[in-house]
Amino acid sequence: MHDSFTIAPWHQSLRQLVDVAAGRRPADLVVRGAVWVNVQSRELIPNTDLAVSAGRFAYCGEDASHCVGEDTVIIEADGKYAVPGLCDGHMHIESGMLTPARFAEAIIAHGTTTLFADPHEIANVLGIDGVRLMLNESLMQPINIYMQMPSCAPSAPGLETTGRCITPEDVTEAMAWPGIIGLGEMMNFPDVVAGDQQMLAEIAATQAAGKTVGGHYASLDLGVDFHAYLAGGPADDHEGTRETDAISRVRQGMRSMMRLGSAWYDVASQITAITEKGLDPRHFILCTDDCFCATLVEDGHMDRVVRHAIDCGCAPLVALQMATINVAEHFGLEREIGSIAPGRRADLFLTDCLTELPVSDVFARGRHLASQGKLLIETPRLDWPVAALNTVKLGRTLDAHDFRLKAPNGAASSVRCKVIGVVENQAPTKHLKAILPVCHGFVKSDPEQDICHIALVERHRRTGHVVNALVRGFGYRGSMALASTIAHDSHHMIVVGTDPLLMAQAANRLGTIQGGISLWRDDAEIASVHLPVAGLMSPLPAQEVAATVMQLNTELAACGCQLNNAVMQHSLLALPVIPELRISDLGLVDAVSFKLVSPFDED
Amino acid sequence: MHDSFTIAPWHQSLRQLVDVAAGRRPADLVVRGAVWVNVQSRELIPNTDLAVSAGRFAYCGEDASHCVGEDTVIIEADGKYAVPGLCDGHMHIESGMLTPARFAEAIIAHGTTTLFADPHEIANVLGIDGVRLMLNESLMQPINIYMQMPSCAPSAPGLETTGRCITPEDVTEAMAWPGIIGLGEMMNFPDVVAGDQQMLAEIAATQAAGKTVGGHYASLDLGVDFHAYLAGGPADDHEGTRETDAISRVRQGMRSMMRLGSAWYDVASQITAITEKGLDPRHFILCTDDCFCATLVEDGHMDRVVRHAIDCGCAPLVALQMATINVAEHFGLEREIGSIAPGRRADLFLTDCLTELPVSDVFARGRHLASQGKLLIETPRLDWPVAALNTVKLGRTLDAHDFRLKAPNGAASSVRCKVIGVVENQAPTKHLKAILPVCHGFVKSDPEQDICHIALVERHRRTGHVVNALVRGFGYRGSMALASTIAHDSHHMIVVGTDPLLMAQAANRLGTIQGGISLWRDDAEIASVHLPVAGLMSPLPAQEVAATVMQLNTELAACGCQLNNAVMQHSLLALPVIPELRISDLGLVDAVSFKLVSPFDED
Repeated sequence: MHDSFTIAPWHQSLRQLVDVAAGRRPADLVVRGAVWVNVQSRELIPNTDLAVSAGRFAYCGEDASHCVGEDTVIIEADGKYAVPGLCDGHMHIESGMLTPARFAEAIIAHGTTTLFADPHEIANVLGIDGVRLMLNESLMQPINIYMQMPSCAPSAPGLETTGRCITPEDVTEAMAWPGIIGLGEMMNFPDVVAGDQQMLAEIAATQAAGKTVGGHYASLDLGVDFHAYLAGGPADDHEGTRETDAISRVRQGMRSMMRLGSAWYDVASQITAITEKGLDPRHFILCTDDCFCATLVEDGHMDRVVRHAIDCGCAPLVALQMATINVAEHFGLEREIGSIAPGRRADLFLTDCLTELPVSDVFARGRHLASQGKLLIETPRLDWPVAALNTVKLGRTLDAHDFRLKAPNGAASSVRCKVIGVVENQAPTKHLKAILPVCHGFVKSDPEQDICHIALVERHRRTGHVVNALVRGFGYRGSMALASTIAHDSHHMIVVGTDPLLMAQAANRLGTIQGGISLWRDDAEIASVHLPVAGLMSPLPAQEVAATVMQLNTELAACGCQLNNAVMQHSLLALPVIPELRISDLGLVDAVSFKLVSPFDED
Repeated sequence: MHDSFTIAPWHQSLRQLVDVAAGRRPADLVVRGAVWVNVQSRELIPNTDLAVSAGRFAYCGEDASHCVGEDTVIIEADGKYAVPGLCDGHMHIESGMLTPARFAEAIIAHGTTTLFADPHEIANVLGIDGVRLMLNESLMQPINIYMQMPSCAPSAPGLETTGRCITPEDVTEAMAWPGIIGLGEMMNFPDVVAGDQQMLAEIAATQAAGKTVGGHYASLDLGVDFHAYLAGGPADDHEGTRETDAISRVRQGMRSMMRLGSAWYDVASQITAITEKGLDPRHFILCTDDCFCATLVEDGHMDRVVRHAIDCGCAPLVALQMATINVAEHFGLEREIGSIAPGRRADLFLTDCLTELPVSDVFARGRHLASQGKLLIETPRLDWPVAALNTVKLGRTLDAHDFRLKAPNGAASSVRCKVIGVVENQAPTKHLKAILPVCHGFVKSDPEQDICHIALVERHRRTGHVVNALVRGFGYRGSMALASTIAHDSHHMIVVGTDPLLMAQAANRLGTIQGGISLWRDDAEIASVHLPVAGLMSPLPAQEVAATVMQLNTELAACGCQLNNAVMQHSLLALPVIPELRISDLGLVDAVSFKLVSPFDED
């Protein structure tokens, strides 16, 4: 049954396509009377018929009557625009908390037919095996999900321990897999700049395979380091936030990927490079990077991004090019996807407005997949192996003692501590200091200062190891705890709370349900999100997962947290590559000096 | 010594490039203070320094001081424009009558640093072995000569016999050779449209190798046949002559290659698709297709084409994109050539005017190759094997009897004959009729009607076979004969003359000198061009070859020929794929019905 969505390469369907175009063989599908959104020439061409065979366009022109046979399905476009299926140039499926099948299910009706997905999160948990599993489910889908081989697991070697590592040998192996399109974002830019052997070996393996090296230059410095990074081979970057970032990347021969994720808003500030500075838009690409399931359900996917680009003043045809042919050309797939033209996969959607972009009917590989927001097929699901469903390995039952921060020997009634300071709507944290009371040799949190406990529980190797520290900014009141196995990038378990016992209960609960998010208040779990696939993804539909996340958010607010996106703020606290202070399985991390530090202020 | 021009892949030079960009290792070359012609962003960026190492750009930015060491060569650009080396998107080296080494020598000072060459002519003589030889000399050059595997030898199966054939197996084999970039122009479009097994197999082998299929749709019909051809996979086409041809090709996902060759003038009529209709120019490409050596010497190469495009009203940066990054992207080489950006081959030229485009200094792979029109290096030459230098195989000495057209048995004093009608400045011929006298059983030519003899001498298989017919339009007077081994596409020998004995002498002379062109008048050779390599190319410099051709033209005029380009008109008389009447080794060919026909009018 899953095979039904596969498509043969163009070179195996040449005869069939020529025969259909010549009128010697009937098409499977003809879309009649559309306005052809021609991203190749940047034109709108009215009164166009599209004939499809073997999942590909066989004929695009003014009259496909000669391609119509008895069994040809006819779709009357009635003057609607026929737009190439949208492509997301860089994204992480795991960010949706959904498996590839459920992610695909959620986005098809929004007109997205191609993803360039970097399974970076699962790679941190399951290594190359996790990548393979993501690829396997992706290859079963009726849309195109190309996979980028993650480059950086761990992303901060020496400062964290991942479940599994990605090696240059893994990269070399993966480059030979069908469906692997390149290397995922090379986020370890300091090591590329430094000429690190391993990072350059991963890039070299990708280039030698003729594939695309993804970039991730998360720095505002456009000086010598930037140039050294460029010489190291990354071909795109989605970390730009300013117009000058977009311009400098394109000038240097990179693709500027401008993202609108659930929590990324980097299109408006950069698209002026096109709309005001008038640069050639061909090397600009739109992407989402990270989309929560709730965004998919409520706002859409790449249709949302294109709409936003148009709202920012971008011409609709240019915005659509940035989500279709520009992406395809970047990955060397222009003869395969990204435009409506003979031989390409018959991926398209119909819409009656190029600015609002309401998506009516969606086709991929010539199949009618969605109509008026309703999916017409089921997306095939992988039978995930036990190894992928059993990734929360605590090794023992945790108790309240595990979540206490022991004061330094000889500490008096109070101690000066380092505190991770949460900054609303931003990934960087602050490195704060605070004086906290010591009781029976342990540091006490202090609701008055909005300081509570944070712990990092090792969950990959059954060590039962717990690192404790302090965090400020969540606004938690009363007795509560939140545990989550979404803990970028190595995805151990982050536990935040005001009560060590509840923290232990929340942590143990995730051991039982094998991953997700568990919120406890006053001795009971009051909300949870089950993410049993690698502790990161749910095999349930987006609507259901989104509903549990929304309920969690409601309960978090009831616990006193007023942050805009509390779940994401939690999930980033263990990310040691972004300043200033983080927690990892190895201890507290000064993410400015890139050193492990004591939780106490010893200056 | 030849190895000195090779360049390692980017992935083997990553460390070195990063080190140079970071200032840890000195660059080999720094070009200082240029205006960066940025074809990626379509901008001019003043005050740019370019640092080069390992033959590639390591740094492109405002200050490369940190890349300069003791041994770094500094070139002061003094505000000149730094333009990416020009790329010729489709061309035949053989048309220059020069070997690849001599062709490269002739074009470098004009700023061309990349050729996409289809060795179609030598393939007709020597098959895949000839392709390999062209590739071998090409790979030795200091500029980039990518080779397209010829697709159609013979171009008219059943109507001509080539020296060797190209098979789908040959194509599959060649796709694995380094330097083979795709399939050469698929000119047998009727067979693609018909779904012919062999043509589709060649295309499939190319696509399966991930390479580019060159197109050649020499027809004004944009109906069903055009669409069937498109479905068959050709990715570009240079046969368009009208604005509508360019537009329809780009809309259909092809690259429109607009050519300005020595005898092709297809830019002005098509570039309005950009300059007036406002199409996105990214899929438009400039090329020469065929350039005689005299054009290279007198007018230039791709600089001439870009200049012409600008004269036609195209913005200079768009015209330059069409000769640089557009070409590179089409062939999947955008990370290698076609722009000035980190990692790319350091191919560039300096100029002080973007409209006149005078080329001052030329660099390729970081080497300073030319300055003010003077070459600073020698282009390495292949030691061509005897098999390639001994291709005129007549099998015997020809005499006057071989060049007589025997009248039909029982013919009276005159006979009605078919006559090939030359049309000045056009490739198509006319199918004419004429009544000619018969003398001793043989047809006599008639200077009064401007009709003389034409013969096709088989030269590949030593058969000594000669086909005789009649031609009109050269204006030859007196006793003369011209023989040439440039005889598209199968390159036997064409002999045209008023005197059978001189025709035999000219033919025998080419047997002696092993190919070229020999002009005889009144019992003596009065001009000749020696083309010993496959009977098509000279190993001498362009200036010398051009001088002999110019002398030949002068003498042809003295023989009465006033045609603009007599040599080309001769060379196309055996091309059975273009209407209306042609000669081949198999007989007279009706190139409308694609049938062999009698030289006599039997209606």
